[in-house]
Amino acid sequence: MRGLMMDVPLTLASLLERARRYFPQVEVVSRRPDGTISRAKYGAICRRVHRLADALQQAGLARGDRVATLMWSHAAHLEAYFAIPLSGGIVHPLNPRLHPSEIAYIARHAGDRFLLVDDVLWPLYERFSNQVSLERVWVHSLGGAPVPAGIERYESLLSSGAEDFVFSPLDENDAAGMFFTSGTTGRPKGVVYSHRSQVLHSMALCMADTLAISHSDAVLLVAPMYHVNGWGFPYSCVMAGAKLVLPGAGCGPEDLLDLIEGEGVTIACAVPTVWFGALEALRKNPGGWKFRGPVRLLVGGAAPPASLIRELDRFGLRILHAWGMTETSPLATMGRLKVHMQPWNDERKYEVRSKQGFAAPLIDLRLMRPEGEVPWDGATPGELEVRGPWVASSYYNAPEAATRWTDDGWFRTGDVATIDPEGYVKLVDRTKDLIKSGGEWISSVDLENALMEHPAVREAAVIAVPHPKWQERPLAVVVLREGASADPEQFRVFLADRFAEWQIPDGFVFAKEIPRTSVGKFLKSALREQYRDWSPPAPDMRKKR
Amino acid sequence: MRGLMMDVPLTLASLLERARRYFPQVEVVSRRPDGTISRAKYGAICRRVHRLADALQQAGLARGDRVATLMWSHAAHLEAYFAIPLSGGIVHPLNPRLHPSEIAYIARHAGDRFLLVDDVLWPLYERFSNQVSLERVWVHSLGGAPVPAGIERYESLLSSGAEDFVFSPLDENDAAGMFFTSGTTGRPKGVVYSHRSQVLHSMALCMADTLAISHSDAVLLVAPMYHVNGWGFPYSCVMAGAKLVLPGAGCGPEDLLDLIEGEGVTIACAVPTVWFGALEALRKNPGGWKFRGPVRLLVGGAAPPASLIRELDRFGLRILHAWGMTETSPLATMGRLKVHMQPWNDERKYEVRSKQGFAAPLIDLRLMRPEGEVPWDGATPGELEVRGPWVASSYYNAPEAATRWTDDGWFRTGDVATIDPEGYVKLVDRTKDLIKSGGEWISSVDLENALMEHPAVREAAVIAVPHPKWQERPLAVVVLREGASADPEQFRVFLADRFAEWQIPDGFVFAKEIPRTSVGKFLKSALREQYRDWSPPAPDMRKKR
Repeated sequence: MRGLMMDVPLTLASLLERARRYFPQVEVVSRRPDGTISRAKYGAICRRVHRLADALQQAGLARGDRVATLMWSHAAHLEAYFAIPLSGGIVHPLNPRLHPSEIAYIARHAGDRFLLVDDVLWPLYERFSNQVSLERVWVHSLGGAPVPAGIERYESLLSSGAEDFVFSPLDENDAAGMFFTSGTTGRPKGVVYSHRSQVLHSMALCMADTLAISHSDAVLLVAPMYHVNGWGFPYSCVMAGAKLVLPGAGCGPEDLLDLIEGEGVTIACAVPTVWFGALEALRKNPGGWKFRGPVRLLVGGAAPPASLIRELDRFGLRILHAWGMTETSPLATMGRLKVHMQPWNDERKYEVRSKQGFAAPLIDLRLMRPEGEVPWDGATPGELEVRGPWVASSYYNAPEAATRWTDDGWFRTGDVATIDPEGYVKLVDRTKDLIKSGGEWISSVDLENALMEHPAVREAAVIAVPHPKWQERPLAVVVLREGASADPEQFRVFLADRFAEWQIPDGFVFAKEIPRTSVGKFLKSALREQYRDWSPPAPDMRKKR
Repeated sequence: MRGLMMDVPLTLASLLERARRYFPQVEVVSRRPDGTISRAKYGAICRRVHRLADALQQAGLARGDRVATLMWSHAAHLEAYFAIPLSGGIVHPLNPRLHPSEIAYIARHAGDRFLLVDDVLWPLYERFSNQVSLERVWVHSLGGAPVPAGIERYESLLSSGAEDFVFSPLDENDAAGMFFTSGTTGRPKGVVYSHRSQVLHSMALCMADTLAISHSDAVLLVAPMYHVNGWGFPYSCVMAGAKLVLPGAGCGPEDLLDLIEGEGVTIACAVPTVWFGALEALRKNPGGWKFRGPVRLLVGGAAPPASLIRELDRFGLRILHAWGMTETSPLATMGRLKVHMQPWNDERKYEVRSKQGFAAPLIDLRLMRPEGEVPWDGATPGELEVRGPWVASSYYNAPEAATRWTDDGWFRTGDVATIDPEGYVKLVDRTKDLIKSGGEWISSVDLENALMEHPAVREAAVIAVPHPKWQERPLAVVVLREGASADPEQFRVFLADRFAEWQIPDGFVFAKEIPRTSVGKFLKSALREQYRDWSPPAPDMRKKR
């Protein structure tokens, strides 16, 4: 027997309608590249979304067409996030941090038909425009940057649409958005979200034990809207009616702290690097910012060391550690303490909070090795596999990547992790970054986090370098704090407290900075390339297993 | 184009699996009819659910079969809530407060095949057993009450099932549960929930702006599990991993306060009547209970007057006012203050909190009159209509009730309400309880809530009595507080502050109690019957519009 419940599809229309009905006065704050602020309200934005959806259909947009954006984070980008899928299209944010030829590859692979581009990104567009075949391009005035005469304008497009435009009915499994993973190996791959997955993921982000986004929150989306589905925030904030604060390009740590203070921010999200910067700014100017109350910092993309969590706590910035990826929309796990852990001492609690946490509702996890499933003992690492209604089932037009999914329908994340008996995931490494030394696995991430707790270290990356006897050995690339000095022996001693001798890097080299991907993660492939021929300065006499 | 996301059905299996994986040590506390407490943990309960599902299939349960329960609220009932739908059946809780012949009618109409019954309810079952044709009946030992020899036992049933039983795959639109509405007119009607609707509704209850159920909560489900889908709590608490406290029959106001104190309850739900009782107990014994922190009281089923909200606030019991019905799973609206209301004075805030609030995510509301949609002006009443993925699309085998749904797919709630420009619903009346005096509508609920703020009044119900000139006029039936006295003229003066003269009841009669439905609501049909021939004791000389 079937349930006798209404067949109401889960589509983005209901999120927008809720903001229009109940939160028309709530603001979306956009910081322009020059640091000035513009403000719009959900009521006005919703009306503009209706106009944009109408205008796109009039411009010839057909069901399933991809419309690319090349935009920073701001209210107009939010309009595109809704209007494109609600007109039957698929919103496809392009990452302006990539090389122009890579952007062109992605736009071609996606089959993008139209483009919305910020005026300040027009010069970038011109660098790849001859490599793509976009039918129409509309320019959004963000920074007042000059664009060639005759180019169509975003505001003109909008003015051709009607505010009372009625969205066509959609199937909840229709595609709504497309995002490419900025993989460090192989060609970028496209993930295609459905209306259903976006709605379920938005609900998940609003649940009390994940991020608990509420209409009483002001949410600072530091993670850019072209990255990993905007972390799901554009949709979940509209669903909740939360104030949204969107910093564009060129927003430094002090600027972020200014926004948190000035806009009464209660939630912010970013990769750890951003919070390292904020912490430095706070240390330099301890009384410089006053926050209204504790701020939840959602951190993902890389593991924050316990020291970062501890130090930010002192400033009222409470890190919530989550894990996910483009393929998981992204929320998959959240590092909340359980009730019975609340009375534990700080040390143990920080240890838990530096793990990636346990699965969000409706998300299943397992750890796999070639020989089968790995027990949740907190010790045995395996590759993390994930399954759930907001997890990708394949990439767009990439049959060569089908091996990323198991025969029984799980996604192979490429992350190596342990899971403890309480269910907390601890990422050990990316499968490709793991250091395989004499048959044993050494986690580059564990070493990095330990090194970053050393007072002289600002950042550290640990990579595998080839070794004639052990196959691979770890090498640490260290960036010192301003004015600090240290020598490798100090680090060896520092690490010896926590690591077996065979796990300690063979060398510590100093660098001015760690190369990064377009979204701020360590670009270890570049380091591996750079240090491919590195060998220890002196004969290596230490005993290794 | 379709989204490329996993086709993972939304079923109750994922809720149970999450509790097993992450919250095996969290307790379900059951209070037996004699006041003693039993404790079980989610880990053990999940294993028993697997065994029960297996055992039911072995007993011959086929897809879509209805399995009735006749049980108070306790851990075994929770097992049935999961095991029956996860074995492919439909759990159908019967309401033991109804007349035996009505229970029999409901079981026959539902086509119930099996029954699980508490030993203490066996005598009730015997009163209607010859009117139903149940294939098998299992008795659950709750109170140690004697049952005839040879009756099958719930624990024996369980022991025939295997802990490692694997649930069969289910379609998310498969029926999961059936609940009959205890309507005061016509025959009871069956609502059939799907796995999908139950999962979405559970997520909704955990969202920050609805009830925010979290694994750090201890939830007291005062509303019985046979009533309105257990308010959705059994499923949402398991999804969140929240501690669940289940009081059975015979739990008075003091017992509830004991449970809140003793079990560290943070959320409780019940109809207002229950909280009137608790407030009286707190008043009599102000220092009698110490709560760990503020307790959220979800109140629904009838509107709590502002005075109740205000007085309970003083004891740390914070009423959250919600609206819903069996047909809406039940959560439809929640009376949270918006951010910009926080600085308002208490008077205005209590006014907002005594409204039913605005729609939960994915729920659409509108107000209708015969002539069309009513504006959200906070003044014009209309019948409230609702639409959403956890709203019923029809009743089970009741074609005569098809008029409860509009041609464009909305459910006619039978509630008359206004909606203000902020989107807050205020229930004015049931369509059938509204008093239609000389072409104008008078809200019985407004008058009742005003009267209940009078210090001498414990409870008041206002009904329509026939009137030769005005068609209908209001009559108030008043229950005085213990030891209080008052005369009708006092009430007239008291109400004149807030109501037009034509809205004030023609009479005030005193009663020892207001008759109630099986779930504690005023049974106004009985009062209307009783006072059908009532006429004012003296000639009615007042001017009416």
